[in-house]
Order: sequence, then structure tokens, then C-alpha cells
Amino acid sequence: MLKNTKVNAAILIIGNEILSGRTQDTNTSTLAIWLNSIGVQVNEVRVIPDIEKIIVCNLNELRKNNKYVFTTGGIGPTHDDITAQSVAKAFELKYEIHKEAYKILESYYKPGEFNEGRQKMVWMPENAELILNPTSGAPGFSVKNVFCLPGVPSILKSMLGSLKNRIVGGQPILSHTISLKTVESEIANSLNKVQEKNKDVEIGSYPFFHAGKLGVSIVLRSEKQSKIDECNSQILKFVNEKNIKLVDR
Amino acid sequence: MLKNTKVNAAILIIGNEILSGRTQDTNTSTLAIWLNSIGVQVNEVRVIPDIEKIIVCNLNELRKNNKYVFTTGGIGPTHDDITAQSVAKAFELKYEIHKEAYKILESYYKPGEFNEGRQKMVWMPENAELILNPTSGAPGFSVKNVFCLPGVPSILKSMLGSLKNRIVGGQPILSHTISLKTVESEIANSLNKVQEKNKDVEIGSYPFFHAGKLGVSIVLRSEKQSKIDECNSQILKFVNEKNIKLVDR
Repeated sequence: MLKNTKVNAAILIIGNEILSGRTQDTNTSTLAIWLNSIGVQVNEVRVIPDIEKIIVCNLNELRKNNKYVFTTGGIGPTHDDITAQSVAKAFELKYEIHKEAYKILESYYKPGEFNEGRQKMVWMPENAELILNPTSGAPGFSVKNVFCLPGVPSILKSMLGSLKNRIVGGQPILSHTISLKTVESEIANSLNKVQEKNKDVEIGSYPFFHAGKLGVSIVLRSEKQSKIDECNSQILKFVNEKNIKLVDR
Repeated sequence: MLKNTKVNAAILIIGNEILSGRTQDTNTSTLAIWLNSIGVQVNEVRVIPDIEKIIVCNLNELRKNNKYVFTTGGIGPTHDDITAQSVAKAFELKYEIHKEAYKILESYYKPGEFNEGRQKMVWMPENAELILNPTSGAPGFSVKNVFCLPGVPSILKSMLGSLKNRIVGGQPILSHTISLKTVESEIANSLNKVQEKNKDVEIGSYPFFHAGKLGVSIVLRSEKQSKIDECNSQILKFVNEKNIKLVDR
């Protein structure tokens, strides 16, 4: 983990469907890649059930320890969507109709279609700031450093653009991957020496086995390209000495 | 979340590669489905970086609050694999060569190939119980209620069989899915009424948009088939009344 990065975030995935294994979470990866690109590092992800007191407790812990918290899930119209009311409770704010959200959804739906179920989606913590939704109308919202996004991956993705100017990141975190036709144990010692000499580059080693290929990907991460380049040279040096082949991945 | 389930578990995903978004975690879903099938419910998942003090702190919190904790990742031969030493620290145990693991790997590799890198994988907390690995030799291990598995999904999957008789679950959690050609807001109120009448069935509502289909999956979960059946009838009743079509998914 990079130690010199100042801007950090946590992701709170709210949803029984992830904990039961029924649904494979993909929002973590989407959010993490996007956050890295704007210089925000994800320190922790938690997946928790749709239970108010658990949401409140985790939110209060994470928002104190991170510059930003992103929640996914639980902002739809059904009985199991309780993120907005839980955020209100965590911040000790009123849970009320958001006038701007009401206007947006009233004009989004055809006359007569803005029914009771849909109206639930405009209930938010007081003074929440909206996160506009170009895909399906119903906005997300933020309160202070907590940003609440939907669970449906395609809708979540479409909302990140409108969030960008509200998140202040540090230096983007750069990365470089070297993939090798070898096994981890063949390079472990040499790689460890490179890590010892380059404490400010995060070096990860990940075996892969798929599509008939077997090998190791070494991932270098740093805010500085020059440090990555230096590390890369040191790794390629021992790779050459050991006659290990580079592979595409 | 089911309230009457007594056997719970937490999953601790250890790995910078998940937090950076580079790798999409799939082990949560694999473990959760398997645990459900043997009557263990996953209460919480956390993804944390390869930093010893963070691993120790999370392990100590989760193992006290859950009957079982499953960790994934960080048990390979490279410098970023620090799960075993962290588990030893969390339990205040010695970190030492595990004789049985040493024998397994010594005979797994050809003479001369059990090198220093590979030998790192036999260092474990004292008296750890091994979890045999039919895929790639190096075993996982458990200490009390903490079970440490590898991060590579295919290897993790292959190790679950040998774990089964060490996990004592409750009633398996049964589920039934009803997929409808509708939107959540059309059924939100009726569904809420069914949930109110059936507090011991967990009813989840999940919109889906893919492969040209748009709809909602309603998932019913309970330990008792009769309760699921009852709930199912009540839902089909309002579905019929509203002229909503069932769809395959």
C-alpha cells in the first residue's frame, strides 16, 4: 500500500444479494479504477447487509477514518432500499422529501406515472446534494463526505462523470505491469530485494492461470513515473539474468 | 437479513490488487454460495490491503464477532504475502515452520526444486491445522475459527471440499427467485405488504437490465421451504392481479 498518498476513500457495498453470493459485485472495481485515476486511493471495502443499525454503525466508522466514503446499493423504491434513511440517521439529519429530486422525477415520468413507489426515491437526508443520473432518472446524493450511488453497475458507471468535480484527489496513482512466464517462487527473493530498495513503490506479485497460460504478473504502483521506471529496470535486470520470458497478458 | 440463523461468518479479502480495482474479486461469491449450502450465513465482507497491522486489527475484530472467518489471499511465496505472519500475530502465536506442510511440499516438488521461495509457504502460526490443496500443493491453514485460503479463485475452489467437515453449519438457507417483466416501483407497495406479513423470510428486490431484458428479480430466502412457498403464493397473487408477466432469467 502506498504510504505517501494523502487522499483516501472507503467503499461500503450495501446489499444482502452480494453477501448471499447471488450477485457478483463489480462496483468495487469500477469505483477503484475511477478513483485511482483521479488520485484517490481505496483503503477499505466493506460489504454489509440491508440492516439499518449495521449501515449506520459502519458509515460512522468509515466516514471518520476516510476523506471520502462511497456507498452502493439500497436507493431504489422497494422495502429493502434503506440507504437514504440510514445515512440520515448516521448524520442525525431529518429524512424528508428532497424538492429538487422531486421535480426531476416528476418531469422524468409521464403524467400519472410518478407513483408512490417512485416517490420513495426522493426521500433523502435534509440538504443532501444530488448526484445526477443520466440513465434512469432517480438521482443519488451526498451528505458531507459520503456519496450514495445505486447498486446497478451500468447506472453507477453513468453517474461518475457528474461526480468528478466534487472529489478532490491527489496525484493520480500510476501503475505498470510486467508479466512473466515463471512461477512466483522463482522470483520471490529477487523481487523482495527490489522492494527493499524501493520502499515508495508498491510491488505486487500475482500468479495467473488462465487461457492456457501460466505465469506471474508483477504490478508496480507509485505516484511518480520515474520511480516506476527505476523499479522496472531493476526487475528486468534479474528477469534477463534468470532467462525468464516476458509474456503478453 | 435472516434473523433466526445462528451460524455466521465473515470473509476477509486480503490484497491490494482488489483495492486498486486491477483484479475483480470472485472469491466472495464462491465462498458465500458454498457457505449458504452448508447453513452458514456471511454477515460481512471486508477487503483490506497487505499491511500487517491492518490485517491483525481486522482479524481480531471479525473473529470475535463471527463463528467463522475466512481469509483469502496472501499465502504465496512473495514479499507481499503476509497473511500467515499476521494471523500468528493476531493470535499471539509463534510463526514457524510447519512440519507437515514442509513434508507435503518437499515431496510435491522435484528434488532440488523446493527452493527458498517455496519454503516460505510452510511458515505458519504454531499448531495451525492444514487445509489441503489438491491443485498446486501449498496448503492453506486454520487457527481456531480462522480459515486461511489462497487468493487464486481456481485453487480456492478446489480446497473447499477438504474443509467441509470442519465447518459446522445450521440449516441450509434455501432461496427461490421470481423474475418479473416490470419495474420495481410497480410492485414496491405490494411487496412491502408481503414482507410485513412474512418477517421470517428475507425478501430482496433486484432490478436487472441485460441481454435486452429489463425486469425485477424477487429473491425469497429462508431456512424453511414452507415459508418460502407461502410467500411465493402471496407474491404470485398480486403479480396476477397486476397482469405482470413472469420471465425466465
